[in-house]
Amino acid sequence: MTTRDDCLLRDQRDPLAALRDEFILPADTIYLDGNSLGALPKASVAQVQRTVAAEWGEGLINSWNDAGWYDMPHRVGDRLAKLVGAGAGELVVTDTISVNLFKLLAAALRYVDNKMPERTVIVSERGNFPADLYIAQGLVELFGNRFSLRLIDTPEQLAGAITPEVALVMLTQVDYRTGYLYDMQPVTRMVKDKGAMMIWDLAHSAGALPVDLAASGADGAVGCTYKYLNAGPGAPGFIWVPKRNHTLFRQPIFGWWGHRAPFAMKPEYEAADGIAHFLCGTPPIVSLSLVESALSVFEKTDMHALRAKSVALTELFIELVDKRCAEFGLGIASPRAADRRGSQVSLTHADAYAVKQALIQRKVIGDFREPDILRLGFTPFYVRYVDVWDAVEALTQVLASGEWKQDVYRKRQAVT
Amino acid sequence: MTTRDDCLLRDQRDPLAALRDEFILPADTIYLDGNSLGALPKASVAQVQRTVAAEWGEGLINSWNDAGWYDMPHRVGDRLAKLVGAGAGELVVTDTISVNLFKLLAAALRYVDNKMPERTVIVSERGNFPADLYIAQGLVELFGNRFSLRLIDTPEQLAGAITPEVALVMLTQVDYRTGYLYDMQPVTRMVKDKGAMMIWDLAHSAGALPVDLAASGADGAVGCTYKYLNAGPGAPGFIWVPKRNHTLFRQPIFGWWGHRAPFAMKPEYEAADGIAHFLCGTPPIVSLSLVESALSVFEKTDMHALRAKSVALTELFIELVDKRCAEFGLGIASPRAADRRGSQVSLTHADAYAVKQALIQRKVIGDFREPDILRLGFTPFYVRYVDVWDAVEALTQVLASGEWKQDVYRKRQAVT
Repeated sequence: MTTRDDCLLRDQRDPLAALRDEFILPADTIYLDGNSLGALPKASVAQVQRTVAAEWGEGLINSWNDAGWYDMPHRVGDRLAKLVGAGAGELVVTDTISVNLFKLLAAALRYVDNKMPERTVIVSERGNFPADLYIAQGLVELFGNRFSLRLIDTPEQLAGAITPEVALVMLTQVDYRTGYLYDMQPVTRMVKDKGAMMIWDLAHSAGALPVDLAASGADGAVGCTYKYLNAGPGAPGFIWVPKRNHTLFRQPIFGWWGHRAPFAMKPEYEAADGIAHFLCGTPPIVSLSLVESALSVFEKTDMHALRAKSVALTELFIELVDKRCAEFGLGIASPRAADRRGSQVSLTHADAYAVKQALIQRKVIGDFREPDILRLGFTPFYVRYVDVWDAVEALTQVLASGEWKQDVYRKRQAVT
Repeated sequence: MTTRDDCLLRDQRDPLAALRDEFILPADTIYLDGNSLGALPKASVAQVQRTVAAEWGEGLINSWNDAGWYDMPHRVGDRLAKLVGAGAGELVVTDTISVNLFKLLAAALRYVDNKMPERTVIVSERGNFPADLYIAQGLVELFGNRFSLRLIDTPEQLAGAITPEVALVMLTQVDYRTGYLYDMQPVTRMVKDKGAMMIWDLAHSAGALPVDLAASGADGAVGCTYKYLNAGPGAPGFIWVPKRNHTLFRQPIFGWWGHRAPFAMKPEYEAADGIAHFLCGTPPIVSLSLVESALSVFEKTDMHALRAKSVALTELFIELVDKRCAEFGLGIASPRAADRRGSQVSLTHADAYAVKQALIQRKVIGDFREPDILRLGFTPFYVRYVDVWDAVEALTQVLASGEWKQDVYRKRQAVT
């Protein structure tokens, strides 16, 4: 069995080890929740002061030109694009992921409505992140039930669900609960071969593993920057629309930043060419500056190196849980095949919430997801091999001692 | 005529004078663009460091509970509500003003569609801020031209435009170009008496003058926090829906933060009771913390005191421009009646852009709006009476010398 010393040795040899110093991390804490809220890059502490005190405080309105604020959704988008295989001019950072999905899905459904009126079904997964299903439900209602939502229960049901009436498939590449990872290329090809459109949610894949949107042939994607991209709580989302769809898609939230000439102040909307059409209101500059500084850390390595370490960390965690926690009734909800697994491992336990809380008491931070999931994320930037060992040690002690059974650990908080 | 010494004396006697120290302001600059981007409150410099370094950096995911992030859209909304006469539980800070207007207008139009199908017209002003017109145009298109947009050219045309087929009136209380101020109560009453709904955009009134939404009887409002509310570039917008409309309005961007139980992770959307239904994605915490610290400055005074000084500043400016600039072909686009004017004075000049740029060279910051408007905002928190005098002095010199005619001042920048 792998020992703690083996883990220390692996950390010594880890080519990414130095990148941990790019982050602020609380002392004596093992943070396994970067899939919910990424840790704070040191670069962002300085950046937010620059943006607030120098650019806003001193530069005031002139900073729209002088500090490059005007172009930020595009500039930051082009930097982020490189992490997900998107072309320049195809991705902007703006709004929330929910609002972006609304715009993208609405645009795609309007295209279907015009060009493929015989197609009426949106396919997704029952286990998809609920917000994505809510956005789709809102649009189904808004389109007067012209479309309906068909939910599959497992990835294996996908091919069979794509009947000729399917207009669009909307999937999250990495399942937020189980960590199941869809293989984007063949899935997209299968969907497109059947004549439907394909939209991906990259919330748990952007910054976690290599994504090649351009090669996928997908019709659009949205993603989140506050998880693996480390841009801070509630940081803006992103939206990708490939160039071939720019002239086909018309999103319904006509905003002045999506206008061909925002400062001409014309009373009629004229959609901007290209991805700018997907912008709406004035961009959130302070938040965008935090996305930009977080991306600067990614530029010190590459997604393939990050993925290699991520896989090694989750493999190690599964190995240790298998060997050390066999007697405690834990299940492993994540795929055991590394190439089907994102950067997380989800365990099942009848009282997963209490176990999560007891782990927090031992300074091992994970999170809980209904109904019985203890979700642990392994961000290769700052999680060490020895952290994996120590986390399993803490888990073993929590379960062996039964300390999780205390009432204090069962009391629910607002955010779980 | 008022002299510079008179202005210095008025500053000495100004009961709000000390509040200028609550802001960071660049040295030797007269900032008359708080109506576009408010200045940086000192409290916000410390706040953003706390939010980023302590709450995010140290507290990480636990800050959703421990630092009160979870409740921020509501908590900050309730604090802002007091400035605009809204009740607790009726206003949230979220998304951009454009996205908020989309949600509000969509909800109102769906209500009309169900309950008043004979009403098909949306009334607004041709000179309304273009983004508002764009949002309405996007919805007209999305509703398959079930509705149409009727634009008036002057406020005097409003009453005549509200024919029986009018569903909804959407106005910005203070005109972004001229500063014309609608009297919210009688206008709303007139619109409601004719059976239409009334939606207000408070972009240039929230934080600039007393607003009493509750007394107005309006059906909803949106607003902006980066102008007179001083929350920073691209800070989130707000949305107000009175309690009586909470059960009548259903907005179409179904988000997980607008769900009755976001963390139950149910696949079906169930709208939250109350204003929470108007939330969509994860709230932008860093931006919200900047709204909250900006509001703390308002709590040191009240909107009536701020309005009294604002009126005094704009009256003084108009008096001095009338007396000192009569020969230079300037027009005054703003109402001369103080009770019909917001916290700005807009001058017209054939080459307003170049005059604006020449003033910037003299460290007097205003902005330009198409086609010929030099717009000067007077934020009573930090603009002094002597600043008004000095600004008019600079304007007089720019115009008298003809220095604005230089090519360098005519060259347009991205943001004007």
